[in-house]
Amino acid sequence: MRKVALVGAGISKFGVRRASYRDLIWEAGKACFDSVAGIKPRDVEGLVVGSVMPERTAFQSHISSMAAEALGIKPSVLSARTEHMCASGTVGIRYAYAFIAAGLADLVMVLGVEKLNQPSSDEAILNMGTGVDREWEAAFGLTAPPCFALAAQRHMAEYGTTEEQLGLVGVKNHTHASKNPNAHFGKGATLEQVLGSRMIASPLRLFMCSPITDGAAAVIVASEERARALTDRPVWIRGTGQALDGFQLTSLHEDYAHWPALKRAADAAYTMAGVRPGDVDLAEVHDCFAIAEMIAYEELGFCKKGEAGAFVAAGRSDYGGDVVVNPRGGLIGCGHPLGATGVAQAAEVFVQLRGQAGPRQVADATIGLTHNNSGMGEHVVMIYGSEPA
Amino acid sequence: MRKVALVGAGISKFGVRRASYRDLIWEAGKACFDSVAGIKPRDVEGLVVGSVMPERTAFQSHISSMAAEALGIKPSVLSARTEHMCASGTVGIRYAYAFIAAGLADLVMVLGVEKLNQPSSDEAILNMGTGVDREWEAAFGLTAPPCFALAAQRHMAEYGTTEEQLGLVGVKNHTHASKNPNAHFGKGATLEQVLGSRMIASPLRLFMCSPITDGAAAVIVASEERARALTDRPVWIRGTGQALDGFQLTSLHEDYAHWPALKRAADAAYTMAGVRPGDVDLAEVHDCFAIAEMIAYEELGFCKKGEAGAFVAAGRSDYGGDVVVNPRGGLIGCGHPLGATGVAQAAEVFVQLRGQAGPRQVADATIGLTHNNSGMGEHVVMIYGSEPA
Repeated sequence: MRKVALVGAGISKFGVRRASYRDLIWEAGKACFDSVAGIKPRDVEGLVVGSVMPERTAFQSHISSMAAEALGIKPSVLSARTEHMCASGTVGIRYAYAFIAAGLADLVMVLGVEKLNQPSSDEAILNMGTGVDREWEAAFGLTAPPCFALAAQRHMAEYGTTEEQLGLVGVKNHTHASKNPNAHFGKGATLEQVLGSRMIASPLRLFMCSPITDGAAAVIVASEERARALTDRPVWIRGTGQALDGFQLTSLHEDYAHWPALKRAADAAYTMAGVRPGDVDLAEVHDCFAIAEMIAYEELGFCKKGEAGAFVAAGRSDYGGDVVVNPRGGLIGCGHPLGATGVAQAAEVFVQLRGQAGPRQVADATIGLTHNNSGMGEHVVMIYGSEPA
Repeated sequence: MRKVALVGAGISKFGVRRASYRDLIWEAGKACFDSVAGIKPRDVEGLVVGSVMPERTAFQSHISSMAAEALGIKPSVLSARTEHMCASGTVGIRYAYAFIAAGLADLVMVLGVEKLNQPSSDEAILNMGTGVDREWEAAFGLTAPPCFALAAQRHMAEYGTTEEQLGLVGVKNHTHASKNPNAHFGKGATLEQVLGSRMIASPLRLFMCSPITDGAAAVIVASEERARALTDRPVWIRGTGQALDGFQLTSLHEDYAHWPALKRAADAAYTMAGVRPGDVDLAEVHDCFAIAEMIAYEELGFCKKGEAGAFVAAGRSDYGGDVVVNPRGGLIGCGHPLGATGVAQAAEVFVQLRGQAGPRQVADATIGLTHNNSGMGEHVVMIYGSEPA
């Protein structure tokens, strides 16, 4: 199997954007091409686009071809859209990765995009319900916030996790976002603000939740030979894992504070990458809600089961701690344009491992991890390194 | 790069189905698992689902996880939905193929599904417009039928192709479908019926067009080692190619009777497979409209440019001819449940190359080809063999 690396990355401004899908694609695509000297759109052999619901939000399928044309790309090997709810962008990176690892392609762009905000905020919120089981769950109101609230309630009951500890995840990620000019939110947040914000689904308050965000992100994935020719600082894909426990909430047989599929996905990625949790310098974890980041600390092996509250309270997931979690602000602070999220996480790891992250640089970062859940029962993990495995 | 093969295949009944996505997934998934002894749902390492618009037709994203759960599959390596309009199923097969070829997986199911018929046929027709550019084409009525009608008009003007020759594609594929118990249409058709059917977009009449169909199809893709252990008749993926000329009709710079992206995709697949057009025993080509099958004869190298009309009229694309095109009835006769189509084509090649196609068996078939276009400007080709390349 061939070695594979990222050689370029770019993101659009995230937020409530008066922009079309094309506008967002252009913004991220141009930033990505600008990030690497010597690649024009015609040079990439394909484009994979992660996007969840352009059919609903723009009455548009076939967005992979629209994006290729918008960017002047002529796919000669590979072209597709990938969708896997909140993990759509990362499964797109895995598509390109597999093609290049197999020797079927050498240079592929992966772009994620979502324009979620609609003229009616009711419609935007309604659309988010497509990610859970329509017939058996969403139709009865069991959308993402109540699912993750159940996980938070269970974690509090089982391990004594507190609202303050959940709030500290919001504080950290809003504060990180304030150093990221592309983030949805730029003002930071105090614990008082987070704990005083509106209740969404108890115990999750507004500032512990990711917002409805528009945005796009892109990376360029290359074979070893092309990567070394294009840059002296490729960022290598060292490992990946994906696992599913279940789709419906009722099919998750462990209690909701345990996410065994995340542990299995992480173990597969660590083994493949040849690294341990303690080797990870920064982790872009899927903090769709604060509880998700806390459970991720545990299942990714950054701390023991049940200790996530103490872990964040001690600053061990922040600058100067064990591992910097969500330096770009995470989904809570940077925003969560579904299909773009996984690609934006990879783009953050790319700049961090190259020492180009400016005021949010993680010192001496050599190993970065990204994690997405799509629902509570399905997880995908990527591990990147400044050196190949 | 590792060798990869199909080891199982199954399809649902195609047609106007009073069935949910889950029902169709169960039907095709069960048929596929039943086709190969010794594989249970828990044995496959992942599931890739090709589907275009469950967001519109069932308010459901994340259908890959819904399908996994419905079938009792627990993805441990790979899970994603792929969408590339009419080629969605085939790009899903390519996703699994790349993972297995790279050594990242050994046994993966690929399933395609679409439930297009709606209580209102107006809504079903409107939904089909998501495949073309919403802002610049679909909104002004330039959906698929007029696009392909322009190609037909051009082919007639340039090469003297006749309505009768277009009609013969409809006759052939409706006749083939009458031997396929899972086809949307089972009654066959005479040339008189085809030429007397309602005009859709001149010169394309109803029986020269694919219908709005519900259905699902599934295949199981395996590494060489697993394939040889599971069956003594694997069907090998020998080559694949994909290429794009353009998304918008206005960006296709050749006249519409020439599809150079199809020629490039086919050339890449032939080279990789080590076969020539004359070696192909059966071809599942993308006859969304009769003209598409005719242009495919030419770009795939079955006949010279401009000779497609004479080719079909001489019976050279039928049983006893040069190559049997669309033995299961094609999109015109079997139906076109978008995401399912590419997988159903692969399932047909699977049974044909194993000699299990019953009354529609192509004699001594050893090489089969599948082709999808997604729009007129983008094409994907797969070549399968009863022996590996």
